[in-house]
Amino acid sequence: FFDQFRMVLMTTDVDLDQYDNFLFDCDGVLWKGTAIIPGGLRIIKALESQGKKVFYISNNSMLSREQYVAKLAKLMIKANTDQIMCSSYAAAQYLFENRQLGKVYTIGQEGIAMELAAVGIPCLESRLVHNHNIPRAELDDVAIDPEITAVVVGYDPELTYTKISYATWLLHQNPSVAFISTNQDATFPSAVRVFPGGGACVAPIIVGSGRQPVNVGKPATYMLELLIRRWGLNPKRCLMIGDNLHTDILFGKGGGADTALVLTGVTQRDDLKAYPDIQPNFVLSSVDDLIPSR
Amino acid sequence: FFDQFRMVLMTTDVDLDQYDNFLFDCDGVLWKGTAIIPGGLRIIKALESQGKKVFYISNNSMLSREQYVAKLAKLMIKANTDQIMCSSYAAAQYLFENRQLGKVYTIGQEGIAMELAAVGIPCLESRLVHNHNIPRAELDDVAIDPEITAVVVGYDPELTYTKISYATWLLHQNPSVAFISTNQDATFPSAVRVFPGGGACVAPIIVGSGRQPVNVGKPATYMLELLIRRWGLNPKRCLMIGDNLHTDILFGKGGGADTALVLTGVTQRDDLKAYPDIQPNFVLSSVDDLIPSR
Repeated sequence: FFDQFRMVLMTTDVDLDQYDNFLFDCDGVLWKGTAIIPGGLRIIKALESQGKKVFYISNNSMLSREQYVAKLAKLMIKANTDQIMCSSYAAAQYLFENRQLGKVYTIGQEGIAMELAAVGIPCLESRLVHNHNIPRAELDDVAIDPEITAVVVGYDPELTYTKISYATWLLHQNPSVAFISTNQDATFPSAVRVFPGGGACVAPIIVGSGRQPVNVGKPATYMLELLIRRWGLNPKRCLMIGDNLHTDILFGKGGGADTALVLTGVTQRDDLKAYPDIQPNFVLSSVDDLIPSR
Repeated sequence: FFDQFRMVLMTTDVDLDQYDNFLFDCDGVLWKGTAIIPGGLRIIKALESQGKKVFYISNNSMLSREQYVAKLAKLMIKANTDQIMCSSYAAAQYLFENRQLGKVYTIGQEGIAMELAAVGIPCLESRLVHNHNIPRAELDDVAIDPEITAVVVGYDPELTYTKISYATWLLHQNPSVAFISTNQDATFPSAVRVFPGGGACVAPIIVGSGRQPVNVGKPATYMLELLIRRWGLNPKRCLMIGDNLHTDILFGKGGGADTALVLTGVTQRDDLKAYPDIQPNFVLSSVDDLIPSR
């Protein structure tokens, strides 16, 4: 009863006047797989027509910001790159902001390399050089590029022991080589199965190198801080809308924003009871409840 | 000065009459790479001539016990399979003892499959079916063998995302599927570099599945308990000799045996100060100091 009551309160309780900036997690909030979640388009158009700023926040490092814009366009969401905050972009910005402009070894997909290129940071793409395992007997002879000053690791469906080894060598032999993860998500769902995520891909390198990466993905707040800094946002005027207590809601709260949980993704209503320390400001059945349609 | 004094005490202090059973870690103790450590052969012959039992304990799951016997023979050490306790054998014994006799998915090298075959447990060898990454788009269609009831993971220089995914699916969808690691060593040294070890290979599967494996390798004491049970050994009459505080010495102490650290491998003298809780009974410069040569 309390939950029901609370939920009704919450869904009718989002006072749009309180917020200027609406930060949406994407998968599980605005779409699921390739299908838009009902109401998603309406909400975004309504917010923009009221002069609100809308941002799209993703832990996915598979795509660059430009590729995200194209993906959104396919779902009929019109956005520009300034509205996109994805972890591939965040990794490149992190290195750029910290003046770590040397060559990067990237494990992941092309989004990372594209975002590094956009800020002029050269990279050695593991997917181009180490997509197959090099036989153990030949691994000792693999030359290590001395110009590499950072390792960036994201979800990589072509992860190999050779890539893990190369990253481990770089990090192990030189403590000044930076170590960045685009996200540490344990899993992500496909239509059929749960797949090992970015957190699984970086785990062997953490173990092998004995080092912990700087994580630029949610729940770390770097992407929110970057938005706030870049656009002069007041975090108290930001509402983060997400489907995952452990990434989206922690991210919003950690960055000083208010948070709304939608139940169309990974978090179920019961999870709220299990994590009393991670309570969002609002709980919505779906993004459609953000603004009553009447 | 204290260290020097203590070491002299220790090296002259090993009273052979106290022990019936001498358990040797191999790499870093008896040999390094392909070279025998000076004194290794002499010590083993001396112990055996005094009627002592000698065992060889290895976290390596690359080889079967029979293959270990052949490897020892190349180094002029005459042993039989009963003297070998390696983690490939231990994994097979663990499943056998726990009546988990269904099909096993093995990530690692052929030692595991050979030891499983020796106790009649069928296996699906990942190295034969998943040594290359299956494209992401086709992964959803990979059929999962419903007869698999356990996943065994060791060091695998041909680890791929596909293998990680397959193991994750098996463990994630069915809590009754057993999960065994042959060792959780973070790294192992080659002649040239530090390589990610068995612990790095199992890490992505731990993250992806959200489950912790039963580790049969050191420092877990299963291999020592197995020896004690199998041969009716009195642990107080056992001396474990190893080069690694965090595997060998913990293993010996955990199983109730006395321990001797040799300084010819990974542990340096200074490490002893850093880990006051893991003190061996004896510290020897090398295995050669176990019995004075006079």
